[in-house]
Amino acid sequence: MRVDKRWSTRLHARSPAIEHALSPSRGSSGGDATVLWAICFFCGENSPPTFPPPDVEKGHDQISRLITSQSSSPAHEARLQSRHNLVTNTSGLAPGYLQANLLILPSQHARQFHDLCLRNPVSCPLLGITSPGDPHTVRPAACIQHPDFDLRTDFPMYRVYQHGKYLGSRRDLRDVWADDYVGFLIGCSFSFEDALTGAGLQPRHQKTNTIVAMYRTNIPLLPAGIFTNATCIVSMRPYRPEDIERVRDVTRPYLATHGEPVGWGWEAVERLGIRDVHHPDFGQPQVFEEGEVPVFWACGVTPQMAVEAAGDKMEGLVFAHEPGHMLVTDWKAGDLEQLGKGSFD
Amino acid sequence: MRVDKRWSTRLHARSPAIEHALSPSRGSSGGDATVLWAICFFCGENSPPTFPPPDVEKGHDQISRLITSQSSSPAHEARLQSRHNLVTNTSGLAPGYLQANLLILPSQHARQFHDLCLRNPVSCPLLGITSPGDPHTVRPAACIQHPDFDLRTDFPMYRVYQHGKYLGSRRDLRDVWADDYVGFLIGCSFSFEDALTGAGLQPRHQKTNTIVAMYRTNIPLLPAGIFTNATCIVSMRPYRPEDIERVRDVTRPYLATHGEPVGWGWEAVERLGIRDVHHPDFGQPQVFEEGEVPVFWACGVTPQMAVEAAGDKMEGLVFAHEPGHMLVTDWKAGDLEQLGKGSFD
Repeated sequence: MRVDKRWSTRLHARSPAIEHALSPSRGSSGGDATVLWAICFFCGENSPPTFPPPDVEKGHDQISRLITSQSSSPAHEARLQSRHNLVTNTSGLAPGYLQANLLILPSQHARQFHDLCLRNPVSCPLLGITSPGDPHTVRPAACIQHPDFDLRTDFPMYRVYQHGKYLGSRRDLRDVWADDYVGFLIGCSFSFEDALTGAGLQPRHQKTNTIVAMYRTNIPLLPAGIFTNATCIVSMRPYRPEDIERVRDVTRPYLATHGEPVGWGWEAVERLGIRDVHHPDFGQPQVFEEGEVPVFWACGVTPQMAVEAAGDKMEGLVFAHEPGHMLVTDWKAGDLEQLGKGSFD
Repeated sequence: MRVDKRWSTRLHARSPAIEHALSPSRGSSGGDATVLWAICFFCGENSPPTFPPPDVEKGHDQISRLITSQSSSPAHEARLQSRHNLVTNTSGLAPGYLQANLLILPSQHARQFHDLCLRNPVSCPLLGITSPGDPHTVRPAACIQHPDFDLRTDFPMYRVYQHGKYLGSRRDLRDVWADDYVGFLIGCSFSFEDALTGAGLQPRHQKTNTIVAMYRTNIPLLPAGIFTNATCIVSMRPYRPEDIERVRDVTRPYLATHGEPVGWGWEAVERLGIRDVHHPDFGQPQVFEEGEVPVFWACGVTPQMAVEAAGDKMEGLVFAHEPGHMLVTDWKAGDLEQLGKGSFD
């Protein structure tokens, strides 16, 4: 398990709009122009703007050991590590467990967002939903099986939107949570990366310890209610052309976590309307080795595009995960492979 | 119930490819250059190439009355009428019952076609599936509740494909059926037309007794296995701009029969890559009244585009419904409205 035992150094510019929109964060440091919105809720300590001093690092080593001893499964351990801000990139974390993207929005928009997911299951496959105002209980119960779960803290990093605009990112949502928020957990392609690795097709970003590259495309997200005029996000992994059919075969069963690719080869770049493969819209650029071509999968960042496109039609703050910073669920690959096949068998 | 009590006059050119590909049809008339492949399996009579003489018409009136007396529901009656070739356009038939599109293909391709449906539920919402080689039993059983059902005869008209090429149309599939064929019943937008009519928004093609206009688009059908590089078909109904939000609201709950529109307004024509609204690719042109704009829904003819795109990758003959000539199922609007909503409630 790859765990970042030091505070992230990611800084976020805080605009007047954020000051206006967000209630004070326990992790903010007042009126600074840049601020790391992070706090360790295990030790109660605010995060510093740079790496912590050695004694803090030692303290987090102790926390990490305590979490390992108290967790009941690799998935539970990953959530506790995320809750205490000890994790950044979740790719490769808790192998065999399915990871989830996130969208949290006021209940008045939940029905239409749910319709959006049902109409666009390749981009937005549903793994679980929370009841309005309850951040601890996910349906179906098999998705998260530990009562200590907290939707507001158990992702490593969150993004905040208002009226379709990205305002900033933060480590937790406890002080901006409202009683009618509904959370949607959406399948993530990290879930099939173990299977790719097992087939000798390890994704490049795992080898290079980077965040997978993600791009805006022209694939329409089929509209539902206020969610109109959005397009899909894709993630990209480089492969040799002769491996693509095997890559498709390995990922095909994972219908509930984006399944097989939506496009492949250099010709797909233009067809999908991707501006520049070497400059992703989210995540980090990936290195292409000799002869490799890009292979694109639908991506769970797509709901954030639906929120952007909805703009002023959405009331209240909306929250999402930071790309690459997922929730590790208690679903296992075996569960969802079967579930995703529907009623055919 | 609108029933055509006379034989259809639709004639189909029969090419050498069809002669080669299809086993002799009981309804064909030998080596004619054009032939109506139709037979009444109630009276055993081959269909003539023109309207039948008065005594045959009188005979079909008797058949129609017999069917009405023996059927147990409007849906059952519609299937019996279709089986005996007394129905053409099924729009408006058996109000309140859901109608289905069809694709039948060899079982070796069934898994990947099933994946295609699950990945593209707006175009290809599944209402039911038959077991390999069994044309009488549909899962789930609620879809078709009468044991006399026959997938090979209960659509008014079928299309035949080989290697992705349309070969011709015929009234039944009994003599081309093979033991490993699997049938997929796919939701049809005719199902929500009763609701539109009930809201004072009756579709134009019902008023004019024409077949709804259908178009090829650039909306990608997300790939599954051999089914790659296909795009979606849409159906179109003209409405006034001020009615569109109400049209969206009325059709939104029908997730399992294409749901709300995928595009609307004249600007959508270019965005969806439709060549000419006044020259549909399937069905019949629709009249626009002053100020009306086109409203587009995903269409269950889309699977036929997937078959065309798969081309030589598909072994054996493939069958589909003739556009506008659907199966009336035993699902009712109330059933599917709830089913289509998934597990949210």
